[in-house]
Amino acid sequence: MKKELIVPPRGMRDQLPAEVELRDWVVARILDTYRQFGFRHVETPSLEHIGLLTGSQAGENEKLIFKVLKRGEAGEAVTSAVSLDELVDLGLRFDLTVPLTRYYANNRAKLPRIFKAIQIGNVWRAERPQRGRFRQFTQCDIDVIGVESELAEAELIVATAAALMAIDLKGFTIRINDRGLLASMARLHGFPEEQHDAMFIVLDKFDKIGREGVAAELSAHGYSPDRVDAVFLMIDRLQELMADEETSSDPSPQGEPRTLFRRLRQIRDAVNAVANGEYCVEYDPKLVRGMGYYTGPVFEIGHKDVPFSIAGGGRYDKMIGRMIGEEVPACGFSIGFERIITVLQERKAAAGAPVKRLALIVDPAVALDAALAKSAELRAAGYAASLLPRDKKLGRQLQALAADGYEAFVVLKPDGGGAIERVEPIAAAG
Amino acid sequence: MKKELIVPPRGMRDQLPAEVELRDWVVARILDTYRQFGFRHVETPSLEHIGLLTGSQAGENEKLIFKVLKRGEAGEAVTSAVSLDELVDLGLRFDLTVPLTRYYANNRAKLPRIFKAIQIGNVWRAERPQRGRFRQFTQCDIDVIGVESELAEAELIVATAAALMAIDLKGFTIRINDRGLLASMARLHGFPEEQHDAMFIVLDKFDKIGREGVAAELSAHGYSPDRVDAVFLMIDRLQELMADEETSSDPSPQGEPRTLFRRLRQIRDAVNAVANGEYCVEYDPKLVRGMGYYTGPVFEIGHKDVPFSIAGGGRYDKMIGRMIGEEVPACGFSIGFERIITVLQERKAAAGAPVKRLALIVDPAVALDAALAKSAELRAAGYAASLLPRDKKLGRQLQALAADGYEAFVVLKPDGGGAIERVEPIAAAG
Repeated sequence: MKKELIVPPRGMRDQLPAEVELRDWVVARILDTYRQFGFRHVETPSLEHIGLLTGSQAGENEKLIFKVLKRGEAGEAVTSAVSLDELVDLGLRFDLTVPLTRYYANNRAKLPRIFKAIQIGNVWRAERPQRGRFRQFTQCDIDVIGVESELAEAELIVATAAALMAIDLKGFTIRINDRGLLASMARLHGFPEEQHDAMFIVLDKFDKIGREGVAAELSAHGYSPDRVDAVFLMIDRLQELMADEETSSDPSPQGEPRTLFRRLRQIRDAVNAVANGEYCVEYDPKLVRGMGYYTGPVFEIGHKDVPFSIAGGGRYDKMIGRMIGEEVPACGFSIGFERIITVLQERKAAAGAPVKRLALIVDPAVALDAALAKSAELRAAGYAASLLPRDKKLGRQLQALAADGYEAFVVLKPDGGGAIERVEPIAAAG
Repeated sequence: MKKELIVPPRGMRDQLPAEVELRDWVVARILDTYRQFGFRHVETPSLEHIGLLTGSQAGENEKLIFKVLKRGEAGEAVTSAVSLDELVDLGLRFDLTVPLTRYYANNRAKLPRIFKAIQIGNVWRAERPQRGRFRQFTQCDIDVIGVESELAEAELIVATAAALMAIDLKGFTIRINDRGLLASMARLHGFPEEQHDAMFIVLDKFDKIGREGVAAELSAHGYSPDRVDAVFLMIDRLQELMADEETSSDPSPQGEPRTLFRRLRQIRDAVNAVANGEYCVEYDPKLVRGMGYYTGPVFEIGHKDVPFSIAGGGRYDKMIGRMIGEEVPACGFSIGFERIITVLQERKAAAGAPVKRLALIVDPAVALDAALAKSAELRAAGYAASLLPRDKKLGRQLQALAADGYEAFVVLKPDGGGAIERVEPIAAAG
């Protein structure tokens, strides 16, 4: 047999036992951690309809799809077609977010209204191979579907941080931003809407290419020196406004940006309050992240030992709506599994234990950091504590929890108190 | 978005949390069991070179490959091509055996000479969808590469049985046969070589379509009533010869068949001796299994609750040789993961603990059942006991064990004795 058939396809690799054992350990610890936060593990097929993948606003990734030839009824390839597109009906998924929204749209009737998903699986991108980049790689995502408030962002960040600590990956920093905030400020600074995408992509490279690099790229995009300065002034102004959190009457421009600043601060401060100094969240007005589908807060985790991010995510409130014609808020956080494997080296251990699922029901009157603190306290007491906003009708919510298999719940009070109560099993239907 | 994009591709499915949790539990228990037998978990990419897949003698499966379009340098599809074949460079794997042999060929220098692999992963086949058959499904394989003796078959069978018991799947029966034995007897009964494949495929359906069904299919293949009778006579004769194990001088035809009968009996009896009546191995002269690459013993596990097999495997001594030009014996056992999930329903539990790896080195003079018994005893004592045939040079073998990370070894004596000794770590190279 030809020697070139014996090596894996370009950009893909064979994993030796020591690496697979490390990966198994990491998967077990992460799964266990996420389950302690009330997330549930789901799986979707590796292949999706090509139309779903190419219509997902996933930016560059759509160009990198591995496309699969149609098969005839008898399993044979179709042999007559006018164009290449007609030959293709499926593609390998390039991320886990697009499939999850399809999954939610397809299985809504069988899922709780607020659905917290764990996904761990391979994705494929036909990227130009380079060191540390593979064409098949594992992603590890959690998503909260159905929560509009920043409860979702805060829980996602704390859970992801806990997962990283569970695999002894300390020394990381979380940066957050809001796409909408950046867009609002850009408009206020006289940058028209149609320039935003290109400008944001350049800004996003700040950490890699520095202020001068960004200036050079903006010039190349036709920005005059004045307009380049205006971009940096805008960034500085965003930093200032965010830092100015002492004032009760927010000095930022009125309307949308004011609300967005407040939301970002709440997330940052609540997470930092429960982090016990083990990690911290920082505002970064230059953080963009590539996906076109993000609509609100975006976040990214960096680690002191490596120059690349090890996790990233954000809110994508429009994606499910485009599928089912009804808006459903959604927010996710994805660990770059291959990257944390690169950071970790020689560890092994055994996986976790079963969990008691508890719903921590949070009234809008409760402070976010109190909710996170209570959630941490319950986990320390052995519960898989899942933060849930309180429904208008608590009775109906408790029924839904029972149907979803919860064993216990706490209705968190504004003072941080709340007793653990048993979820009553639903009486069998007559 | 069109509704047909929201459902998974034909023959594939979304897995809800309860199912995924069951699957995770099963994976953890099986992995743990297999590790106790000294197998190591490895992974290969889902995509392989199309030439590898189509040249693998994998029978019908080669017709069911999901083929992937070539990508241009810039990630674009190639737009000019003379034939469909030229458009395709990769395919999704249809089993885990072909990729494993490629993996072994590619990584030989980094693997122990006797390599025991665990693989758990998805495979894809464009089969006509039907109840209980999916186009993406999980396989769970163990393979022993580099062992020529029936030690491999026996260990594979016991480990697979232990894995099934670890997930509380009792009530199964293991059938074994030998492809070579069937072929030898067919030749002796006057069936020319070129008829064998078609005849064996018909015979393999005996359990499903019965004696009359087999007779009808053989007639359709042009067999005269006499020749149909000859087929059944051959099967009855094989049964008789196998049963006639009391006589020390084997009454079967001389040469190859005699040796093959002896080997099959040894495997069957040794496994049954350690099975404690919890399961049993039976000879079935009609068992064939579809893959063209099998060269010796083949095995299959059925369960009382379902009409299909839940695991299957066999020896494939020529496959690696075709890749690297040097014969390396190999043998594997694959659990039909989707099928056992179908059998299992509502269980959950936590996964296992770390293992102490022990090499159970077996001299050719040691009886096979003694080796299996010792292996079971060591596992009961908390070791991951891996059966290994004794090398001519024991010192070199022990060095290799140390390099491979074994902690302990036993050189099994013909009387069944043998003390546990520590594997000495190799001194660092100067």
